[in-house]
Amino acid sequence: MNIAILGTGMVGQTIGAALIKKGHNVMLGSRTATNEKAIAWKNENGTNAANGTFADAAAFGELIFICLNGNGTVEALQSANPANFENKVVIDLTNPLDFSNGMPPSLLPQYCNTWSMGEEVQKQLPNALVVKALNTVTANLMVDAHRVNNGNHNLFICGNNTDAKNAVKEFLSANFNWKPELILDLGDIKYARMTEAIVPFWVAVMQAEKTPMFNYMIVT
Amino acid sequence: MNIAILGTGMVGQTIGAALIKKGHNVMLGSRTATNEKAIAWKNENGTNAANGTFADAAAFGELIFICLNGNGTVEALQSANPANFENKVVIDLTNPLDFSNGMPPSLLPQYCNTWSMGEEVQKQLPNALVVKALNTVTANLMVDAHRVNNGNHNLFICGNNTDAKNAVKEFLSANFNWKPELILDLGDIKYARMTEAIVPFWVAVMQAEKTPMFNYMIVT
Repeated sequence: MNIAILGTGMVGQTIGAALIKKGHNVMLGSRTATNEKAIAWKNENGTNAANGTFADAAAFGELIFICLNGNGTVEALQSANPANFENKVVIDLTNPLDFSNGMPPSLLPQYCNTWSMGEEVQKQLPNALVVKALNTVTANLMVDAHRVNNGNHNLFICGNNTDAKNAVKEFLSANFNWKPELILDLGDIKYARMTEAIVPFWVAVMQAEKTPMFNYMIVT
Repeated sequence: MNIAILGTGMVGQTIGAALIKKGHNVMLGSRTATNEKAIAWKNENGTNAANGTFADAAAFGELIFICLNGNGTVEALQSANPANFENKVVIDLTNPLDFSNGMPPSLLPQYCNTWSMGEEVQKQLPNALVVKALNTVTANLMVDAHRVNNGNHNLFICGNNTDAKNAVKEFLSANFNWKPELILDLGDIKYARMTEAIVPFWVAVMQAEKTPMFNYMIVT
């Protein structure tokens, strides 16, 4: 499968490398085609790895991961050309974290409480099938759910299109070892407000547990 | 022990009744001493149950639970007289939820992201030892942690005073069956921002799970 990843940070690189290992063709997209981090990633990941502009990557991908930071997302999506996302499943991992006051972070005020990054992404890409997912765990756990508690822990997703959410569940199960029955669909993309709002809490738990390799399991 | 509960809603009544069963003397405080819900609660809960104004209750309690709603908390605490809280452990359960746009709720904007109800309570009661606790689970689970997964799930607390947090841990263990090793201290009262921000997420999970009787267990 041809997969695009927008963003060259740790999350994008980790997901891209994991998907290459699974046999996919992956293009990392960034602001310029000469981004040094993207080129270094391509050189490390073999012939199925490529890099290009945001627009190159979005045009290439049948499935698109958004792994940007909150501040730059709207500009990046516009430069990627929203037409390149039409009728595609788009997995949004972006967390609108604000570290300007140090640790622990808050959320960027414009994507907080009554609005979210996930909703903004869907607004910027009106014809894309946006699914918010994976933003609530650390990168190395995103790509291999078995690394914690034999995969017994929950992922929380949301989005407006049920088929797209089911496709994401299957994809995460087939590629990243997430147990489909533990992927909880919270509702439409508005619920990105909730799954983004728990990320500062995640940072607090990480500090208390002294490791990012954890997740929550819902128990009844 | 003489214990005050500020608030006559479901949470306050449930905690009060549970503490009476444990042998404590409990006074429910409300805006007036003639509050019908408080009087009905007193009549149902025997001779160790009492009711009075916010100030009556705060003066009575060696330990004080705040079980108010976000909108009325500041006014209630002022009417209770902050001097009545001096050097006392105060457990704040208040969630500043805003249901004005229906379900799911958001947070009241003034207690959101970069400020919290817990911090506001500590500010209103500068000489009290405020511990944010119990606000992340449903009332019937607050008072008996064994009701879910044999008590194997986490509670998140925070506050500025370590001795007060340890006292709350012991109290919750002795009275409400919380396992002390599963009560995670996130830090100072600023972390109330995080534990309050996960409550709209809790509502979303409740909707998806179709029950309020659940909690999260951190797994590594």
